[in-house]
Order: sequence, then structure tokens, then C-alpha cells
Amino acid sequence: MKASETVQVSIGDITRVATAALVQAGCDSGNASAVARVMAAADRDGCASHGLFRLGGYLASLKSGKVDGKARPSTKRLGPSVIQVDGHGGFAPLAMVDAREALAPLAREQGLAAAALVNVHHFSALWADIEPLVEAGLAAMCFTAYMPAVAPAGGREPFFGTNPMAFGWPRADGATIIFDQASAAMARGEIMIAARDGHELPPGVGVDGEGRPTTDPAAVLKGAQLPFGGYKGSAIALMVELLACGLLGQPFSVEAAEEDNRDGGPPRGGMLVLAFDPARFGDSDGWLAHSEFFLARLGALEGVRLPGDRRAKNRARIDREGTRLPAKLWAEAVRAAG
Amino acid sequence: MKASETVQVSIGDITRVATAALVQAGCDSGNASAVARVMAAADRDGCASHGLFRLGGYLASLKSGKVDGKARPSTKRLGPSVIQVDGHGGFAPLAMVDAREALAPLAREQGLAAAALVNVHHFSALWADIEPLVEAGLAAMCFTAYMPAVAPAGGREPFFGTNPMAFGWPRADGATIIFDQASAAMARGEIMIAARDGHELPPGVGVDGEGRPTTDPAAVLKGAQLPFGGYKGSAIALMVELLACGLLGQPFSVEAAEEDNRDGGPPRGGMLVLAFDPARFGDSDGWLAHSEFFLARLGALEGVRLPGDRRAKNRARIDREGTRLPAKLWAEAVRAAG
Repeated sequence: MKASETVQVSIGDITRVATAALVQAGCDSGNASAVARVMAAADRDGCASHGLFRLGGYLASLKSGKVDGKARPSTKRLGPSVIQVDGHGGFAPLAMVDAREALAPLAREQGLAAAALVNVHHFSALWADIEPLVEAGLAAMCFTAYMPAVAPAGGREPFFGTNPMAFGWPRADGATIIFDQASAAMARGEIMIAARDGHELPPGVGVDGEGRPTTDPAAVLKGAQLPFGGYKGSAIALMVELLACGLLGQPFSVEAAEEDNRDGGPPRGGMLVLAFDPARFGDSDGWLAHSEFFLARLGALEGVRLPGDRRAKNRARIDREGTRLPAKLWAEAVRAAG
Repeated sequence: MKASETVQVSIGDITRVATAALVQAGCDSGNASAVARVMAAADRDGCASHGLFRLGGYLASLKSGKVDGKARPSTKRLGPSVIQVDGHGGFAPLAMVDAREALAPLAREQGLAAAALVNVHHFSALWADIEPLVEAGLAAMCFTAYMPAVAPAGGREPFFGTNPMAFGWPRADGATIIFDQASAAMARGEIMIAARDGHELPPGVGVDGEGRPTTDPAAVLKGAQLPFGGYKGSAIALMVELLACGLLGQPFSVEAAEEDNRDGGPPRGGMLVLAFDPARFGDSDGWLAHSEFFLARLGALEGVRLPGDRRAKNRARIDREGTRLPAKLWAEAVRAAG
């Protein structure tokens, strides 16, 4: 993209404009600001595919009536170490705020606890969902499915969602190490960006509608993505379906697609969040120094980068300078904000 | 291998001979039969690399005094949903028996629970470790590290263990779906078998001692294995280190290697097992039928095989016919049994 087709925007401005656009489209202020914050968090970390780029999808789902922009999540205890947060058909971010608030003290009390988010529409980056738990000193995992996009190993039809999972581990001084990765070889958002910008894909990312390997992002979006790492990534994608859908009583990716109205926004689904209190697993005094020692050794290896390193660098720079967005995307957002 | 160099052996005979050999080398009968059963379970499922093939390593660790063949595991509650099973320097299988016995009722009571196995020497297949939990109707995950074998993505030195993780989901009529996969592109046991049998490796499995890609299994065993799926598999390997070592206060792979006596048997380490009661996550009446519907649709896709399908087929055949073992391996086991 030429510089003339982009604009430099601060994260504060992205948050304000996205919030206003969501309110214009029917969100109450709690939902609007929770959703705007997850988009802004992605742009802040240099992840355009989950940033303001998603606003159009959020707005479409409000306009079509698929998502209730005024939904109030409700929390209930399903067992001593399990809570369920029902989003009642709203976007995921506000339910995730409630889930974190209930899950953090429960994990400290129980040692290990789970939050089952149900009836939410999730369209954002998982690392931002778990980061506050990890900053609070908990280890966390998160799983969610989507709509069929990935062919299981050996197959050629989309069946699994992109099915991201995230894992976070607390570091000294409130820092974190978090990875967040789709079970697909490449995140669908990245393929959408490649299609928009006319870039070719690396091999192994997907097949076209006839099951033939291709590097054309538009063809992959019409065909099927492939899992990362062959049958092993395919097994991870299956695990995500069973944990985020089967376990929680939520639609599997194939079912989500059948009930979805195809408005371009996220389908209804579930999310599973696990939180571990490292102080309750047998090494209450030593775990932090021990893992810091290990991560320092890992980070010192030639050629090796810790997960989240690039995001942390982007964040420091973008907090100072703002981020470059396509001018068209920004103009549309400003227009939607009214 | 030529047929003349192999023998057909029943699983019962493998169990009896392995038990006797372990007792001869200093195990008490509880430890011997628990260890023999996990080797026999692997051979029964057609997984030679984790079957009787491992006996030599177990015996070496008894003879060197690294592992206490008479260790009695002890269990304690670390939190409402966390138990710790201390193996006191014994092999993992007996501690795993105790862990499953305590974990299954705890998961039913809490919804979700964890067992932290510490000070165990693990040398077997994870799917056999969690299968009884899954047959009892629980979903389960299991993580363990090992000694440095895998170079992190971007690096060229062994740093992560092969770091397997397993996931199991209960099916109708006590059946299971379980995957068990190393974070390495190929299990180290498979590479050892390839080296023994003079087979070449597929590309992408490892690098030699200079960091150069190679398909020679002996060179990879001296160099470094690679993670499956590039940086995503590398992130999974990192997660396994943090969960099985950092969380539990157990040696990371790099530390395990530093303390190990290199007798050819397994190092001291930790294992994390999670158990979920699917009836306590919001869909108590529907989860089984719902997931059966999903797995049936998945299994019906052209070219797609469910994880564990091949093991189940092997098991049915081997229960009838026995399995073929290298004659030399069998003769050594019989000799060790005295």
C-alpha cells in the first residue's frame, strides 16, 4: 500500500472512533467500549487483521440483528471450579470482562478453574482476552472455534474453524509471555489482508475449491485452509472443537455455519478459558524465578524469539507513534462514528 | 527387518516377561507390573517405539541406581482442585495409577481438576496414561517434557524435550478418542527405530550437529530434532515445558539433562494431567450425543482418519494374533527375566 493511501492514527483515536461507531449501530456503551478496546489492543500490538479491520464485521452483525449490542452477560457457578458466563447473544468482549473478574479469584481459591463462555460472538484476538489474567499472575489457556475454514489432515473440505488457542505465562514485574495461534497454517484474517492487498501466500496454507494446493488468497478463502503441521495441527484443531463447542454445549464450527446469517460478522459460539495459579501447584516460592531462568536461557539462543516479543516491540512503538491504517478503512470508521 | 529376525509374541507374554525382568533388576512387584503394563499397552496398539523396545532403558536406570524400583508414590492435596503425586524417584506408571485414582473423583466433584506428578521417571506413551480416565467418561489432557532434543523455531541447538501432549475425549459405550503427539515433528522413539532399522527420515524432521537439515536418523539423534509446524509447534513445546516443569517445580528439559546420569533411561521430571467432567460444563444431558454427531461427520469425510483409529485397529488385530518383535529384543528380554 502506498503511504498516500494510509493514515497515522493513535490508539486512543481508534478506540474513540470504534466506540462511537458501535454505539451508532446499536451497542450500549459497555458493549461498545469493550469491543472497541479489543480492536484497539490488536492495532496497538501491530496485528492489523484483528484490529479496526474488524469493525465492518461487528457493525454488520448489529445491523442484521444477529448480535444484540445491548446484551448483559450473566455468570453462574456450574461446579466448584467451573463458571459459565452466558453472553445472551452479545459480542464476546463484555462477557470476557465478566469471565476474567470471576475466574481470577476462583483460580486463586481452587488452584485451577475454568470459565465457559456461551452464546457469545467472538471476532477478536485471544491474547488480548487472556492478557489481564496473566498480568495478574495466573497462567491461562483459551480456546475458541469459528466457522468451517480448515480441512482436517487428509481431507479437502473446510470442516474445522480456524480454531485459535492461546497460552499465557506470567513473568516478573507483571510482564507476560503469551502465544495465540490459529490451528490453521495461517490466520484467516491474514489471508483476508493478503487478498485485500494482492499478496501471494506461502505454499501449504490452503487449497482451492477443487482441493488443489494454491498460493492465491482469494482461492483459499473460497476453498479450504490447511492446518499447521499436518495431522498434528489437525489434532489440535479437533481438540479446540471438542473443548470450546462439545464440552460447553455450543455449536461446532459446522453447526455455527449452518445457523449463521452470513452477515460478515462472527457466528454464535463458545469459548473456554482455563486459569492456573502457579503458587498452588507445588512450587509456590520458586516458580517465578525458575521459569525466568528458563525463559532467559531460551531467549539467549541464537535465532530464537520468545512468543509475543514482536507484539511487545510493536506496542512500545505504536504507543509513541500511533499506527498506520489504510485511509479507506479509517474514513469508513469515522463516517460510521457519525 | 526379515521375518526370520522377528518373533510373534502375545501381549500377555510381553507383560509377563517384562514384569519378571523388572523384578530381576530390582523393582517391587507393584512397580514392575505397572511399568510392564504401559510397555505392553504400546505394543498392543502397534506402537513399537514405546513398547518392549523401552525395556533396556528401564533396566539401565534400575541398575545405575538412578531410579528407585521400590518407590511408593504419595498423594497430597495442594488446593481444592489440585493434587500432587510424588513419585519419590520411581518410574511414572505407579504414580500415574495413584494419580488417576485420586483425579477421577476430584474432577467429578470440582468439574475440572489437575494432578501434578513430580519426581517421576517417565518413559512411556501418554495415551495409555490417560486412557482409563477417558474410558471413565472424563475428558483429559496430559503434558510432559524430557531431555533436550528439539531446537526451538529459528534455533539450531536442542533445547526443548520432545514434549508430548495428549488429549482424550470420551465416546459412547466407554470408547475414546485420544491423540498423543510429540511437539517434535517426529517422536524420538520413531527416529531411534529408524536408526536401528537403517531407514531414512522424511525432510523437516531434524538437523545435524552443525544445524544442517538431514534425513539421516543417526545424524538427527546427534544434532537436533525440529518442532512440528514451525513456530506454532515450537510454541506448543514451550507451553509443555512451562506446564510440566515450571508450574510443577520440576526440572526443565535443559535442567533434566544436566542432572541425568545418561544411563539411557528416563530423567527425573514432572507430568501435568487435567481432567474435565463434561457433565459439569453446561450441557450435562447433551454433550455425548452432540459430540458423537460431530465426530461421525468428521469421520465420514473422504480421506480423514480420527486420531487413535489406527491404534484401535492394531489393538483388535494384536489381541488376536500377538505382535511381531525383533527376535534380538525378545531374546534379551527373556534373558533379563532370568
